[in-house]
Amino acid sequence: MQAEVINTGSELLLGLVQNTHLGWLAGELAPLGVTVARQVCVPDGPDIRGALDAALDRADLVICTGGLGPTTDDITREAAAELLGLPLVEDKTISDAIRERFARRGLPMAERVARQAMVPVGADALPNPNGTAPGLYFPPTVLGSRRARHLVLLPGPPRELQPMVRDHVLARLKAALPGAAQRERRIYRLTGIGESQVEEKIGEKLEARGDLEVGYCARPSEVDFRLIGGKETIEAVEPEIRDLLGEWIYSHGSTLEEAVVGLLREKRLSLAVAESCTGGALSDRITDVPGASEVFLAGYVTYANETKENAIGVPANLIAAHGAVSEPVAAAMAEGARRKAGTNYALSTTGIAGPGGGSAEKPVGTVFIALAAEDAPTTVRRCYFPLDRPTFKYMTTSAALDLLRRHVLGLPLQLGGGSSLPRLG
Amino acid sequence: MQAEVINTGSELLLGLVQNTHLGWLAGELAPLGVTVARQVCVPDGPDIRGALDAALDRADLVICTGGLGPTTDDITREAAAELLGLPLVEDKTISDAIRERFARRGLPMAERVARQAMVPVGADALPNPNGTAPGLYFPPTVLGSRRARHLVLLPGPPRELQPMVRDHVLARLKAALPGAAQRERRIYRLTGIGESQVEEKIGEKLEARGDLEVGYCARPSEVDFRLIGGKETIEAVEPEIRDLLGEWIYSHGSTLEEAVVGLLREKRLSLAVAESCTGGALSDRITDVPGASEVFLAGYVTYANETKENAIGVPANLIAAHGAVSEPVAAAMAEGARRKAGTNYALSTTGIAGPGGGSAEKPVGTVFIALAAEDAPTTVRRCYFPLDRPTFKYMTTSAALDLLRRHVLGLPLQLGGGSSLPRLG
Repeated sequence: MQAEVINTGSELLLGLVQNTHLGWLAGELAPLGVTVARQVCVPDGPDIRGALDAALDRADLVICTGGLGPTTDDITREAAAELLGLPLVEDKTISDAIRERFARRGLPMAERVARQAMVPVGADALPNPNGTAPGLYFPPTVLGSRRARHLVLLPGPPRELQPMVRDHVLARLKAALPGAAQRERRIYRLTGIGESQVEEKIGEKLEARGDLEVGYCARPSEVDFRLIGGKETIEAVEPEIRDLLGEWIYSHGSTLEEAVVGLLREKRLSLAVAESCTGGALSDRITDVPGASEVFLAGYVTYANETKENAIGVPANLIAAHGAVSEPVAAAMAEGARRKAGTNYALSTTGIAGPGGGSAEKPVGTVFIALAAEDAPTTVRRCYFPLDRPTFKYMTTSAALDLLRRHVLGLPLQLGGGSSLPRLG
Repeated sequence: MQAEVINTGSELLLGLVQNTHLGWLAGELAPLGVTVARQVCVPDGPDIRGALDAALDRADLVICTGGLGPTTDDITREAAAELLGLPLVEDKTISDAIRERFARRGLPMAERVARQAMVPVGADALPNPNGTAPGLYFPPTVLGSRRARHLVLLPGPPRELQPMVRDHVLARLKAALPGAAQRERRIYRLTGIGESQVEEKIGEKLEARGDLEVGYCARPSEVDFRLIGGKETIEAVEPEIRDLLGEWIYSHGSTLEEAVVGLLREKRLSLAVAESCTGGALSDRITDVPGASEVFLAGYVTYANETKENAIGVPANLIAAHGAVSEPVAAAMAEGARRKAGTNYALSTTGIAGPGGGSAEKPVGTVFIALAAEDAPTTVRRCYFPLDRPTFKYMTTSAALDLLRRHVLGLPLQLGGGSSLPRLG
């Protein structure tokens, strides 16, 4: 089944707002066997009508975002009704809900707001608990001789659109698509391994079966490995995937920091960190997770050498002898942070983020990552991420989180080879 | 002048890669008086021809991204040449450059790679120092009776496309557009003020002149205020803008953290931070700036109460008496961090990021931000950001950076009213 996505909104064409709808919708539709064959973005106003007209004759499913609001340039609802020859009638439930929403906030309701309660005859209004404009679903019965069997109009803001699609659109499409209900999507999120290695270890083999759709999405230090197919097929290949990729899989959807904080909470273990080159980014990722305060007690951003000494007791002579970016200093930072905070574990990072500060022996991108543990000797990993500053910080914090994840799970701490992997010291 | 942007690439329609071309191109074209009237995304392959055909009759400028590479589904070059009836001839300079690029890396060059050196007669090849595929510019002379006066084909990867547009496309368009060379764009970046206040203070008045295009882009805690017009007009209104908005303007393009680190470097002042609710995000933003190590010495992520005590000497009885989220504790954190690190300044944050932990007196979103200075009494600001966790962290760190910016510049620390402003305690 082929879909066309129409995005309306002058703010998108002016480049003021990034259009994230296409990527998100494509991901939700893929498990149903729906492919987005074309996407088009038009300004608010009369071009919407032409875009809808063309799309309804070109695709099986047309999804249009934006233009359902109260202002005069919001004309998507009217354009669709007119194209399909459907009169608009007021839906009292919706107009009452909108009126009540305004009353609750003590605001007067402009008359034009009531337009949002108009529903084309034969279309279903889709509730919008996160805004005033409901969505609209047009079933095959009102689409007549058009190629399209389904037309969906959605509000523009992602926080209104996304719950509406999940709660009201996907079920309608599944019911109409033979086989879609039996298909599902499973995502494996991996770190410390490259996309091509995943492909080689198992991806090609799964692809060759012919009954699974296999996809990859690589980001710095992470790979999402995606399977779409029948529920039973996916269950059947699971053990082999676990067997070949198990140690690199950190979740089926959560972020790496969520996975690590979750592990620590589950096992009631506490953590501190000492950061030099990552400058707070590791603490920041950990504390992005709600409930992190149960396990994360302290972060020391020891950017200056004096801070390494007076905050967490790294000996000045160690820094003098080996340099701040070195294996012994990384170890002393992690041990000092763990001692000072009294935690089960501590992670540390010290490296050269660049653009300046590199040398022949320790070029820009060199970093040492250490884990101090109450139940094991300190481990130091040397990595090399010669990348821009934010990516360097991100990959370093990922490698640190992964070091802890592997330790807590009793997995090997030494990683294999591969181009996107940290080099080992 | 109206432009149409065509993005080709199955990875965009599959949602694997976020399409950032539209926003970027719209921003570059706006100062030339070029508006993007439509954007369309089609898969690699035959649909490109139809999309080009329609766009060439609909817009004055057509920009097509992607499909210039060596693989069989890269057919943009051939589709454009065929549509316009232009034979393709090999450009020896380009094929030699590609061959040399491969030789330098010791790689064999597949024959199909040479396709990238084929140039339609009458089009200009645009050099690509960041990849193998050159871009192509088609001038009015080869576009015949089409509406379009310019057709530009660009490679898909942003790091190849963006320098090519800046170095080779904009100058060609400027030369062809009457008045475009005299137009320029000025951006004012503001913090601590809302979009509607900027509009009210001066935006409406500038808009009413009729010779300036005025735009706004609001993000959490920031507003970009944008003027496009003649150079002299922009210079003429500058003093009034400075007069009315001066204290909120932190740059003409740099981030807030770049502006603050720049100020401290210029004045040779040092900084430490103590973070509770922002969990490292403030240190992270500061250390995103290359050269931050010259001014930023230490960050203390004192997430647990014990860490507030043992890392920076916040008295336990202060926390017991007022709670960790309070004005006295914020002040003690900033003062403790400054004392411990021996810096000119220290900033601190303590608040309730949520989702849990709020109370009637201090609901989720409450935060205290303090500045300790060697040259002034400690200032504490109470703010209220009842938002999702990452936005709460971002707005809190922005308010902290702005507090320091205002102090260093001798600006008032008390802010006026307005819906998007921090509330004062």
